[in-house]
Amino acid sequence: MKKTLTYKILENHLVSGEMTPGEGIAIKIDNTLTQDSTGTMAYLQYEAISEDKVKTKRSVAYIDHNMLQTGPENMDDHIYIQTVTDKIGVIYSRPGNGICHRLNLERFSMPGETLLGSDSHTPTCGGVGMIAIGAGGLDIAAAMAGSEYYLTMPKVVGVKLTGKLGNGVSAKDVILEVLRRLSVKGGVGKVIEYYGEGVKSLTVSQRGSITNMGAELGATTSIFPSDSETLKFFKAQGREDDFKELSADEGCVYDENLEINLSELKPLAACPHSPDNVKDVKELEGTKITQVSIGSCTNSSYEDLMTAAKILKGKTIADNVSLTIAPGSRQVLDMLSRDGGLSDLINAGARILECGCGPCIGMGQSPNSGGVSLRTFNRNFKGRSGTVDANVYLVSPEVAAYSAIKGEIADPYEKIDFVIEEPTEYIINDNMFIMPKPDKNKVSVKGPNIKPFPKASVIYDNFDLKVVTKLEDNITTDDIMPSNAKLLPFRSNIEYLSEFCLRPVDENFSKKAKAEEKGSIIVAGDNYGQGSSREHAALAPLYLGVKVVITKSFARIHKNNLINNGIVPLTFINEDDYDTIDIDDVLSAKDMLKQLDGDEIIIKNETKNKEYKLRLEVSDRERMLLKNGGLINYLKTK
Amino acid sequence: MKKTLTYKILENHLVSGEMTPGEGIAIKIDNTLTQDSTGTMAYLQYEAISEDKVKTKRSVAYIDHNMLQTGPENMDDHIYIQTVTDKIGVIYSRPGNGICHRLNLERFSMPGETLLGSDSHTPTCGGVGMIAIGAGGLDIAAAMAGSEYYLTMPKVVGVKLTGKLGNGVSAKDVILEVLRRLSVKGGVGKVIEYYGEGVKSLTVSQRGSITNMGAELGATTSIFPSDSETLKFFKAQGREDDFKELSADEGCVYDENLEINLSELKPLAACPHSPDNVKDVKELEGTKITQVSIGSCTNSSYEDLMTAAKILKGKTIADNVSLTIAPGSRQVLDMLSRDGGLSDLINAGARILECGCGPCIGMGQSPNSGGVSLRTFNRNFKGRSGTVDANVYLVSPEVAAYSAIKGEIADPYEKIDFVIEEPTEYIINDNMFIMPKPDKNKVSVKGPNIKPFPKASVIYDNFDLKVVTKLEDNITTDDIMPSNAKLLPFRSNIEYLSEFCLRPVDENFSKKAKAEEKGSIIVAGDNYGQGSSREHAALAPLYLGVKVVITKSFARIHKNNLINNGIVPLTFINEDDYDTIDIDDVLSAKDMLKQLDGDEIIIKNETKNKEYKLRLEVSDRERMLLKNGGLINYLKTK
Repeated sequence: MKKTLTYKILENHLVSGEMTPGEGIAIKIDNTLTQDSTGTMAYLQYEAISEDKVKTKRSVAYIDHNMLQTGPENMDDHIYIQTVTDKIGVIYSRPGNGICHRLNLERFSMPGETLLGSDSHTPTCGGVGMIAIGAGGLDIAAAMAGSEYYLTMPKVVGVKLTGKLGNGVSAKDVILEVLRRLSVKGGVGKVIEYYGEGVKSLTVSQRGSITNMGAELGATTSIFPSDSETLKFFKAQGREDDFKELSADEGCVYDENLEINLSELKPLAACPHSPDNVKDVKELEGTKITQVSIGSCTNSSYEDLMTAAKILKGKTIADNVSLTIAPGSRQVLDMLSRDGGLSDLINAGARILECGCGPCIGMGQSPNSGGVSLRTFNRNFKGRSGTVDANVYLVSPEVAAYSAIKGEIADPYEKIDFVIEEPTEYIINDNMFIMPKPDKNKVSVKGPNIKPFPKASVIYDNFDLKVVTKLEDNITTDDIMPSNAKLLPFRSNIEYLSEFCLRPVDENFSKKAKAEEKGSIIVAGDNYGQGSSREHAALAPLYLGVKVVITKSFARIHKNNLINNGIVPLTFINEDDYDTIDIDDVLSAKDMLKQLDGDEIIIKNETKNKEYKLRLEVSDRERMLLKNGGLINYLKTK
Repeated sequence: MKKTLTYKILENHLVSGEMTPGEGIAIKIDNTLTQDSTGTMAYLQYEAISEDKVKTKRSVAYIDHNMLQTGPENMDDHIYIQTVTDKIGVIYSRPGNGICHRLNLERFSMPGETLLGSDSHTPTCGGVGMIAIGAGGLDIAAAMAGSEYYLTMPKVVGVKLTGKLGNGVSAKDVILEVLRRLSVKGGVGKVIEYYGEGVKSLTVSQRGSITNMGAELGATTSIFPSDSETLKFFKAQGREDDFKELSADEGCVYDENLEINLSELKPLAACPHSPDNVKDVKELEGTKITQVSIGSCTNSSYEDLMTAAKILKGKTIADNVSLTIAPGSRQVLDMLSRDGGLSDLINAGARILECGCGPCIGMGQSPNSGGVSLRTFNRNFKGRSGTVDANVYLVSPEVAAYSAIKGEIADPYEKIDFVIEEPTEYIINDNMFIMPKPDKNKVSVKGPNIKPFPKASVIYDNFDLKVVTKLEDNITTDDIMPSNAKLLPFRSNIEYLSEFCLRPVDENFSKKAKAEEKGSIIVAGDNYGQGSSREHAALAPLYLGVKVVITKSFARIHKNNLINNGIVPLTFINEDDYDTIDIDDVLSAKDMLKQLDGDEIIIKNETKNKEYKLRLEVSDRERMLLKNGGLINYLKTK
């Protein structure tokens, strides 16, 4: 049987399950990564599971998200992560070293291995032929403790690349084209695997931009073969020994197919407010802009920034534009400085920000009210920039730099007379990675903002609990647990965060839930928990005592997060029952532990004297997790 | 008569008054500068006074404070300042260009001229022989509109410098030594004038560090002669034509005298929590640190940062230290990059922040809880770093860099084997200054966060007003109008800020004051309004309707700010009367407009049926301002 590259690597790592799309499988995880906004919780969870060294080949903790530090919380988190990683044998990447995905690609990517990261853009390392998947912090904690990772065997979409990118066209335009064709839901349950002649013309950094932003397709991950171009990158990074050639078998059959002729691509832009709202830059020309931001894990490589620098060389940005540059790593910044690109950027008027995620996650550089911002980032959801009424366009560094000069969206197609080659030798300095030191009595240091995280427990065998809130359809994890520059520093303080739980849709939820000493129930409509994979959207309700969530339907990842935290997710078999429940109704159940063995759960509305049949739609493993009171309790008993 | 340099320049600019220390004088202002956190209000006030072009020789608006931009407010302010300056003929320095004091020294300093700036560290330009004074935004607005500036004729303290700085000793240690000797109150009503053989050995950047931090003495300003070293600086900045030789007459008599032998100085540190709590670094050696921050308007010159870079070259900072570098200007950053210093810093593990004030004003890089931070800044007040329980030490770049390597406070004395010479040619690129363009119909653009500022009015001729709060002694302007990373973005929104007015000492003040439709009265103890010169501490009470403030005594600048805004400042003639007033008492007065002509004001406590004699201690000019309803109304009638 001729195999896809995805199939080969998954097969190599298969622990259990059948490799048929849609079936549950478990795979061995070789590597993990965390960043700081999800990492503190992941390591607190790890400490709850294990006091031992991690079992992975290599795990790395990065600091790249919360670096503005407008209060002590961020640095307290950094110190906690530094001390806990030293204790459990994880490499610590110090703040200022760079963005996790950029650094992991540069220094720790391993063709053919698996990587699980507590950040949705983990697939970046797919650029060198890794299976790199984003997941919740607890999944990373479990993987570090030696657990396999459970996922649905994905379909593999083969994207055949032909031709060669034209002048002014960039890797960003490739992924924007895929998003235009497949939409932000088009990758769900799938791996996007690139192959074909066109692949050879793309550098590893370019491939990384494409696999990175594959996250916006909702895909499990994206992957490129590991070839001579990959070898060049590893050599230039002084890591030839880590290289391994890998590709799909010629003639293998993909579950779905797509073909892109790189030669035919034009500069593209994702228009407000979705990454798949893609238009030709040509169509948008003349749109006045107020800000241009270059950087993020998608477009902050040496090639990206040198390209911008060369376009801006000798020019001055338009009076109406603020241009910011955030290099992806120290390596990039140092080389930019050495090769004169930094000077070109500075002299054109660019504001040089610290190496890190920065404005991409709304940590700074919010545009003006109603402003128009061109960003080389990966997401342009309404309000993510920190300015609710801003219009954000996602573009390549070429479009960004070219437009910054003009002061309006401008098309660089066939107007750029140079190509930045990938360096044959990168400046290598790993001194901002702190390697875990040999054993001694180590303790993690927890600042006052790092609160014990809430412990899950097994559902009561018999209960009568109050419905504390009743919500509409399409409640997002942003509704459940808001995240912004003001709340992000509190990611390790569920106690504080929980005050803001569901506030956008039910202002008093937190108070009402807390008042119910025995616990409480949430009732909601369709697609509950859609949006970001935010684990905190389960942890805050857990802290507030929520025991059961009953909805018309759940978004997949949020449901997983509820189960991981011992909260029972049920759906109405008869959707009309939704209308018969009101806030403050008391719902009761008998013999829940026995009922958890089945697919149907009987719950009675004591207030309305009515019985509901509810569905418990879970895998055998998930059933076991619920019966053990969540993943941490399960792993501890194991 | 042999004259001090201070006397000469003041004499050249005298408009009215007698040049005897302690007497009121008015001087002509040649130049002004604003920064963004005080600037928005200054320009709103200017627009209230005048629609014309500014009358100064040169006025410059800098953006350097609010650059984190965690919401739209900051960029809205930047756009307002950019558009209003274009309208009224002020040079606009774009965000990213650098810190106002650094840039003004580099590009716009003029020996022998006067400079008024809405920032307390304006005296930096005293480094080239300017009289450069910090003042409130309204004073700057008035000066731009052509008004003279009123001040008390200062005493002149002559500081004779002899010798030459030793190895590992820096300009920072000179001003720390002055602070050790004079204390933070030692400069009040005085100009600190440096002279003597030792001056010659100090570069302009070093002199700028000394005059800059002279602000911490409470001095009116600090000044150096303009000599051959100054000429060297102007030549290197391509500004030879702006140079003018200036010095005190040999043998002139100073009001007070001090002598410092530079050769005898050792590295010093201002210990928590005051700039005058100065100790030898030697004594502090071994103190564990968690953060080192290099930059700020005090120590962010090319020489400062190259010195740090050279100390750090080839080294790695200690594991327990986070090191941040914020260059003072694009010029500094660009030259640092060109000359390899930036690479040395990056490779040692420094985090390179944007050119700007940054951590010095608590905009980011707050230390961990209970952390120890070594900073090359100018203030170490408790909580200013954003971390209430952090311990901040103020040191030179040499001590900072040397300690960053060791991970503890370390003394570089006689351990540094190089000297960074001042460049003979700076990289010059003024393209981030936007010069006001010739006339056309221009309007300033005010984003939604820029609210009309409160208009003052003449006190009622007859009133009965409620006492809404009664406060203790030593209420600071930080109590009256708190400032932090969360409130700083709202400096142009008095409506919002006023909600936080006096909150630290009377939680409900804002609500209570607002409820009094006719207006209200504040009663307080001694030294009311001490601390920062914050004009907003008058504007917020004005917005809330405060008409009269009665205290045992006032801090000078806050009293000025009240008068400028038409609020009547009265003190008890009989201090025991303070005890007889309670919150909610109604105080009444008759014929106030006539009473304002005298030094004693009679006010009756209607609730207690008791009469108070109060003192109105103001100059003739101030009396006139009060009778006209504040400075803006006065200037408009003129």
